[in-house]
Amino acid sequence: MHIDIITVVPGLLEGPFSHSILKRAEEKGLASVRVHNLRDYATGKQKQVDDYAFGGGAGMVMMIEPIARCIETLQTERSYDEIIYMTPDGETFDQPMANSLSLKQNLLILCGHYKGVDQRVRDKFITREISIGDFVLSGGELAAAVVADAIIRLIPGVLNDETSALTDSFQDGLLAPPVYTRPAEYEGMGVPEVLLSGHEAKISEWRFEASVRRTKEKRPDLLKGKGWE
Amino acid sequence: MHIDIITVVPGLLEGPFSHSILKRAEEKGLASVRVHNLRDYATGKQKQVDDYAFGGGAGMVMMIEPIARCIETLQTERSYDEIIYMTPDGETFDQPMANSLSLKQNLLILCGHYKGVDQRVRDKFITREISIGDFVLSGGELAAAVVADAIIRLIPGVLNDETSALTDSFQDGLLAPPVYTRPAEYEGMGVPEVLLSGHEAKISEWRFEASVRRTKEKRPDLLKGKGWE
Repeated sequence: MHIDIITVVPGLLEGPFSHSILKRAEEKGLASVRVHNLRDYATGKQKQVDDYAFGGGAGMVMMIEPIARCIETLQTERSYDEIIYMTPDGETFDQPMANSLSLKQNLLILCGHYKGVDQRVRDKFITREISIGDFVLSGGELAAAVVADAIIRLIPGVLNDETSALTDSFQDGLLAPPVYTRPAEYEGMGVPEVLLSGHEAKISEWRFEASVRRTKEKRPDLLKGKGWE
Repeated sequence: MHIDIITVVPGLLEGPFSHSILKRAEEKGLASVRVHNLRDYATGKQKQVDDYAFGGGAGMVMMIEPIARCIETLQTERSYDEIIYMTPDGETFDQPMANSLSLKQNLLILCGHYKGVDQRVRDKFITREISIGDFVLSGGELAAAVVADAIIRLIPGVLNDETSALTDSFQDGLLAPPVYTRPAEYEGMGVPEVLLSGHEAKISEWRFEASVRRTKEKRPDLLKGKGWE
């Protein structure tokens, strides 16, 4: 998988892609991520990428011309399965969307900043608008990093232990059960006895019941229509 | 506001806090963020911070001892309004939560990694569990950066234009209207005439109607109970 990310603040994305699983995925040749500085596609001395909003009001708007030039340049190198715009008013990102995006070959992600991009960019180029949640960030960069992380870790071979992602929260529509590790006793706090029993079937049963209980308590909305209410 | 973040992958957080508004907030003395490497609180030659889960299964679990040592050390320096654990099974982060956290003085954020932390850490130390959405990341680091960004930008004085955050999506329960900037015509694509009219009242009316229309179309759930359905 290849992901191109267009941003006006490339520095924001330095950490996320040079550490942890994203770095490992890159080293294994399973995924590559390139961050493109939108300013490199601006013309004029000022390298202007934003301007005042028509109609007035607070906040700057990202101009269509540098974005068009950048997208059209990148499109000469590869064809994209999706051209994604990160925006708070997009479709809400979730695990099924992560699963489906993890199967794509080439993704282009445009990060909004300031008040967002000129609407004509969305009309002309964008095939998918994604929000990571009902909150506003200073830009789409962290949101793009979140999406990239969530999908790249699902590519077979990226996680050290492939079965690990299958037991994550949301993969079966349930929250994950509580986990414990050594020591078995810490300042008077123990561990559920069944987990120390070595009895696999009982452990599985306990985990499933703990998952259902936790989901009922914290996220009853996830259980709707599953007959577990 | 001061935010301490505890992580096993401090490098992941290098970019986000040394760029953009987070850097500006720090320079203006309005917010400070310190990233703490959990490994510095591990003992033994291996500096071990994780171990196998009791009961078996894929994925490592973060041990209570280094975390307890780290939190208890940080608590000798300040008292925290909230000790937050970033986890997919937490309360879903949203703009009202961002607004309320932006009023706090001291926050401690613990980033889960691998399969998460020993449940006893949550029972003993954590006052609030937050998820940024229904998806799984390779760790809580990007989620912590998202939360820090969303709340720090709300601190008065952080954004250049204070009124800007007030017109964001979600602040009034609506998605933001489309925005446009120069040029007024791009490859045959124009701009809604009203935005070029200079007529403030009409522009406000158009924007409000466009917000309601966009919200109805993309996120009808946000309008429930507001009489706008």
